[in-house]
Amino acid sequence: MNYKIALIRGDGIGPEIVREAKKVLDKVCDIYGHTFSYEEVLLGGASIDVHGVPLTEEAVETARSCDAVLMGSIGGDARTSPWYQLEPSKRPEAGLLAIRKQLNLFANLRPAYLYEELKDACPLKEEIIGEGFDMMIMRELTGGLYFGERRTTVEDGVETAVDTLTYNEKEIRRIAVRAFDIAMKRRKKVTSVDKANVLDSSRLWRKVVEDVAKDYPEVALDHMLVDNCAMQLVHNPGQFDVILTENMFGDILSDEASMVTGSIGMLSSASLNETKFGLYEPSHGSAPDIAGKDLANPIATILSAAMLLRYSLDLDKEADAVEAAVQKVLKGGYRTGDIMADGMEQVGTKRMGDLIAAEI
Amino acid sequence: MNYKIALIRGDGIGPEIVREAKKVLDKVCDIYGHTFSYEEVLLGGASIDVHGVPLTEEAVETARSCDAVLMGSIGGDARTSPWYQLEPSKRPEAGLLAIRKQLNLFANLRPAYLYEELKDACPLKEEIIGEGFDMMIMRELTGGLYFGERRTTVEDGVETAVDTLTYNEKEIRRIAVRAFDIAMKRRKKVTSVDKANVLDSSRLWRKVVEDVAKDYPEVALDHMLVDNCAMQLVHNPGQFDVILTENMFGDILSDEASMVTGSIGMLSSASLNETKFGLYEPSHGSAPDIAGKDLANPIATILSAAMLLRYSLDLDKEADAVEAAVQKVLKGGYRTGDIMADGMEQVGTKRMGDLIAAEI
Ligand SMILES: CC(C)[C@H](C(=O)O)[C@@H](O)C(=O)O
Ligand SMILES: CC(C)[C@H](C(=O)O)[C@@H](O)C(=O)O
Repeated sequence: MNYKIALIRGDGIGPEIVREAKKVLDKVCDIYGHTFSYEEVLLGGASIDVHGVPLTEEAVETARSCDAVLMGSIGGDARTSPWYQLEPSKRPEAGLLAIRKQLNLFANLRPAYLYEELKDACPLKEEIIGEGFDMMIMRELTGGLYFGERRTTVEDGVETAVDTLTYNEKEIRRIAVRAFDIAMKRRKKVTSVDKANVLDSSRLWRKVVEDVAKDYPEVALDHMLVDNCAMQLVHNPGQFDVILTENMFGDILSDEASMVTGSIGMLSSASLNETKFGLYEPSHGSAPDIAGKDLANPIATILSAAMLLRYSLDLDKEADAVEAAVQKVLKGGYRTGDIMADGMEQVGTKRMGDLIAAEI
Repeated sequence: MNYKIALIRGDGIGPEIVREAKKVLDKVCDIYGHTFSYEEVLLGGASIDVHGVPLTEEAVETARSCDAVLMGSIGGDARTSPWYQLEPSKRPEAGLLAIRKQLNLFANLRPAYLYEELKDACPLKEEIIGEGFDMMIMRELTGGLYFGERRTTVEDGVETAVDTLTYNEKEIRRIAVRAFDIAMKRRKKVTSVDKANVLDSSRLWRKVVEDVAKDYPEVALDHMLVDNCAMQLVHNPGQFDVILTENMFGDILSDEASMVTGSIGMLSSASLNETKFGLYEPSHGSAPDIAGKDLANPIATILSAAMLLRYSLDLDKEADAVEAAVQKVLKGGYRTGDIMADGMEQVGTKRMGDLIAAEI
């Protein structure tokens, strides 16, 4: 089959890790007889350098014309990069927020699991790890504090800043449906996380989630306060299957969860809209300090490409093949620096991509 | 000296742990020649049961007339307690939020450290623990999403809920000053946590914190995004000295940090206003499942009483004595169930209080 994929190489290590993911996709095409054509799209710092803004309308249109978007990572070192001399709305991250909103990518899926092979990298003790853990975080991505009205005003010489956290029933319902759908294909458990003892938006969240749950009698639904969830992720991560939460809480909890696995260089993500279209990117950042040194771990991006095959192109067999290839290379003892351990063979970004492509 | 202390025994294990803390304070009075008189104040479920509301004006006035407030814990099991049949603004937690606001307790200090004696209870691996960790979280407690306007409206049959996050310069300045003052007595490092790549309130936060920092040239100031901080607490908690943050982020991060120490039954807290006045409570909750069973760990409340002596009454020597007594009892091998380990002697709530009082 023919597909069109937008590539956002991005900043920092972005170009290197996208290059390796594309290498793996090319191999998939060879083996399974598909043709992928690629469109380059600029976002973040790379777009600022060329166009002066982190996202152009044209870039959004190009992305929209494709079947899916594969992204590296964006942003730079805020302390030293000239991008951060610009006002906040013109910085690299603003481009990412804008493309999420404009493409209506409201459902952000972030898997967080412990790789058997990488147990040593997990910061938690053996007895906390227990049987291991495998969660899917479903984060709402186009609402809440991220996209509410905000303003900074001065009165009597005193500055005041206001941000607003807004959710309506429809926004909550569509993300909840996604979470329950995913739970049906997993261990059938949803933990909805909110701060319903304080926020009106959380009380509405809880009510709508309860309502959606009625259509999924097989799924066990739990509500958890966000402060408690931040504790439970460290205390007993094995209890979670699908975590469903709003934008800001999801930002915080998904980063915590990915660190708890010890494998942040391994974790992929998908941001989906109401159709099959989605944007796929690693959970980690752009690591400007190691950019261009062949040190970055391309696996999270390669696994994001696997998610792209699965969710946007319905190519399950091909996605399975990519995931199996990653597994084999890990079993073979190959590691990038970030996940290096005693007795393993350390390889660079490029070599890791070659090894995985070769296993397809 | 004579002092007046308000006691909020609260709900769940609250009455037992306050009883033990009072036992320790009585011993301090004996030894150091002070007289403490106590005023009982109802808050939370205990107040609902008597007055139908979680906080009365009279309770606030009584608390205000004292030199400080010592509190146990409030709230019950939301699944089974009749308190949670009431609308949110009438539940136990609403009383806690109201007393914080009415007494202007804007500065919430939450120490989070690893007890050498309790290393086994820490969920993190030895290599992550490193030299150990000792942080102070300074959480803003009377602003932000907790106290902004909120409303739930219906339009065309669709419900929408809005919460607002507001901070002004003055609110940020006064909490920042507290954080830097505390840092001066510690390792002289402040990590200010925000989400300045998204929120206007965080950008104002950062600006004001920078400005306050100018008066503390000896203190090293760092800014960290909240998602990164949630990761760093698990990855390398030893890097933190004082964490300064707004209300909701502080709620999430302080719970995460206390769990990371593995000693949540040991962690105290202080909530202070512009004067010496403060409310002191354990960082943990009301644990309704073990209430009345002589199983609760009273140490967090006893250490909160020590903070009360130190911050509200300026009785540093006495505070040191309480902390040293706790240390001695731990060294002696006594443990409540929550921190029990091989080779230690398990004791109940009351016995733990007796042992600590005896060491003063
Ligand atoms: C870059 C930033 C705006 C973004 C977010 O907060 O959503 C990032 O942290 C993420 O989680 O994708
Ligand atoms: C009970 C609740 C409203 C409260 C809060 O969120 O502040 C609690 O979690 C705390 O941290 O003291």
